[in-house]
Amino acid sequence: MSSSIFDQTVQPIAEEEIFSAHEGGKLSIAVGRPLSTKRDLSIAYTPGVAQVSLAIAADPGLARTHTWASRLIAVVSDGTAVLGLGDIGARASLPVMEGKSALFKTFGGLDSIPIVVDTTDVDEIVEPLVRIAPSFGAVNLEDIAAPRCFELESRLVEALDMPVMHDDQHGTAVVVLAALENAVKVVGKKLASLKVVIAGAGAAGIAVAEILLTAGVRDIVLLDSKGALYHGRGNLSGIKAEYAERTNPRGVAGGTAEALSGADVFIGVSSSTVPEEHIAAMVEDAIVFALSNPDPEVAPEVARRHAAVVATGRSDFPNQINNVLAFPGIFRGALDAGARRITSAMKLAAAKAIAGLAEDKLSAGYIVPSPLDPRVAPAVAAAVAAAAVRHSG
Amino acid sequence: MSSSIFDQTVQPIAEEEIFSAHEGGKLSIAVGRPLSTKRDLSIAYTPGVAQVSLAIAADPGLARTHTWASRLIAVVSDGTAVLGLGDIGARASLPVMEGKSALFKTFGGLDSIPIVVDTTDVDEIVEPLVRIAPSFGAVNLEDIAAPRCFELESRLVEALDMPVMHDDQHGTAVVVLAALENAVKVVGKKLASLKVVIAGAGAAGIAVAEILLTAGVRDIVLLDSKGALYHGRGNLSGIKAEYAERTNPRGVAGGTAEALSGADVFIGVSSSTVPEEHIAAMVEDAIVFALSNPDPEVAPEVARRHAAVVATGRSDFPNQINNVLAFPGIFRGALDAGARRITSAMKLAAAKAIAGLAEDKLSAGYIVPSPLDPRVAPAVAAAVAAAAVRHSG
Repeated sequence: MSSSIFDQTVQPIAEEEIFSAHEGGKLSIAVGRPLSTKRDLSIAYTPGVAQVSLAIAADPGLARTHTWASRLIAVVSDGTAVLGLGDIGARASLPVMEGKSALFKTFGGLDSIPIVVDTTDVDEIVEPLVRIAPSFGAVNLEDIAAPRCFELESRLVEALDMPVMHDDQHGTAVVVLAALENAVKVVGKKLASLKVVIAGAGAAGIAVAEILLTAGVRDIVLLDSKGALYHGRGNLSGIKAEYAERTNPRGVAGGTAEALSGADVFIGVSSSTVPEEHIAAMVEDAIVFALSNPDPEVAPEVARRHAAVVATGRSDFPNQINNVLAFPGIFRGALDAGARRITSAMKLAAAKAIAGLAEDKLSAGYIVPSPLDPRVAPAVAAAVAAAAVRHSG
Repeated sequence: MSSSIFDQTVQPIAEEEIFSAHEGGKLSIAVGRPLSTKRDLSIAYTPGVAQVSLAIAADPGLARTHTWASRLIAVVSDGTAVLGLGDIGARASLPVMEGKSALFKTFGGLDSIPIVVDTTDVDEIVEPLVRIAPSFGAVNLEDIAAPRCFELESRLVEALDMPVMHDDQHGTAVVVLAALENAVKVVGKKLASLKVVIAGAGAAGIAVAEILLTAGVRDIVLLDSKGALYHGRGNLSGIKAEYAERTNPRGVAGGTAEALSGADVFIGVSSSTVPEEHIAAMVEDAIVFALSNPDPEVAPEVARRHAAVVATGRSDFPNQINNVLAFPGIFRGALDAGARRITSAMKLAAAKAIAGLAEDKLSAGYIVPSPLDPRVAPAVAAAVAAAAVRHSG
């Protein structure tokens, strides 16, 4: 990890402690009922298990209640965009995927298994997952580079009859929306009248733009490494070309200087840096979410000189915008409801539930609950399940 | 399950008890260290985990010690030969695969995950497993119909750099050899001078023939549903044609009547039945392993009238020949040794270890230890690991 002046505020953790905590891996399989006697074996294995298998063969729906698979999440990665480390490969992504499984269990009470794929070809990722699909009940895509992640997610949503979500896109987007809903309350503004600038047009940036559009934000400028996406900008294709049409109604061109001038909200999901003077050019009561980790696009103490609400992705500053607020509850709610898709309605419901938990103590320094707040996942799950049922009903 | 007069000796288990024991599935994921504090999260997930991922990217061998994957077994099935139920499909095979995982954990202390594949095409099974191979460290093939199982296993052994074993073949073969080694001691014979008849030329029958040939048995007659395999029998192809050449030196033709006349050993791994008079025509001090479940090829009390040693696959008779004596220790030993293949030497070592544990109390009614004997898996693992090291050293 690159170092940062901000790292000084974190209690340092010795390398040996980190490596020793990973020895042998972080997960294991637990057996629900002990197999101590011949009778136990006759129930869990032959001959008893044959009755359960025959019942499922006759009524496949019984697999949902009598196997672990239908509530099991495959945490799938190709290792191409692991944390901020880039394309380090499937095998090196495993500790992160095990960590994700640990988070699913801890916060959502959900079982999951890391499935890492040794290919970056979309077909070669989709096909294996389709073949082994009866082994699990949902797919969490993780740390897959843009723009491939967009095609992969939509292909899997079509191919699999189960919830599929790329968390780097939608988990981030849900928490950003939750934080923004509360931030605008703090500064007394409305989503519909905001000028929003999003730095980063990768997985997170595109998904944030999409959920903000769905939530009613009208004026969004998305920036990639070459500046603002706008109608008519050359050399755009694929999803960037699509969002160049769907965002930026004022046709802003240029970089953060041009985009942030007079803007209400900055959302950084890139690894770029933004000079103080560009932040200073935002309107009064500006909102700055500088989410790059470990180094925010602008240092929070610098941003605070010019903005009313500042959030980061870090645990050592107020307002930590962290996916763990969203994904355990989203998958839990989708699986509880037996949903086949994770819809926009479910994502909006998740954002509203997260925002709602911070509402009673709302302030510029508290726009989202803590990632460790035990109320979060159950509240998100309930809201998501209700939205799923309403949606399909 | 078909009923049998022998079922009367088993304490019946109510259907409700079996189904209730399977509710929600039999497995779950356990997290090694609790994630209770921000510090815990910083170690198991970001930012700490990045150090482990970077270390593996630099030295892939570290995945072996710092993830669960290298010791994780994929329990793979296409659901085509599930127990005695036949082709009931991937989804219906799940309770059996979860049961297998429970056995791996209970007896071998090994983590495993059921991966069931929704196809019966060998290419379509091999390719997904190759793609997701960094997710696990060994493959146990289970309940896959012959003759496809032979091609699938050899393809996977070639394609994957890890131990791969079809347990219905080799687990069975190892335990049969262990039992036979002790049975010949009881009757004072030698493996090399035995006339052995194997009823069933599917996964188990072929593997039993192979391991007996390797162990020094010279006179084996394999029977399929049409009778003995012999040189010159018409319409044989593939593996049956191969074993028609490698077995049956006396060129015996016909069925069990012809094959069993004067034979020393009958090994039944079919679902056929053998009339009492055919068993009666075996030599004195005959050995009968009637392994079909739940209905042995010949009732053990009938076989006992004519044979000195009788074994079945059932837990309610003496001498239960059960794969659980072999597979947990074989995989444990292979993984402990870091073996890339499960070799003949390792299988022979496993059989010898199993046989050795019954040696001190050896009798016609005790030729193999109980499947619940806690000494078995560690002894098998140690023997297999030693054979792996000797083999590769």
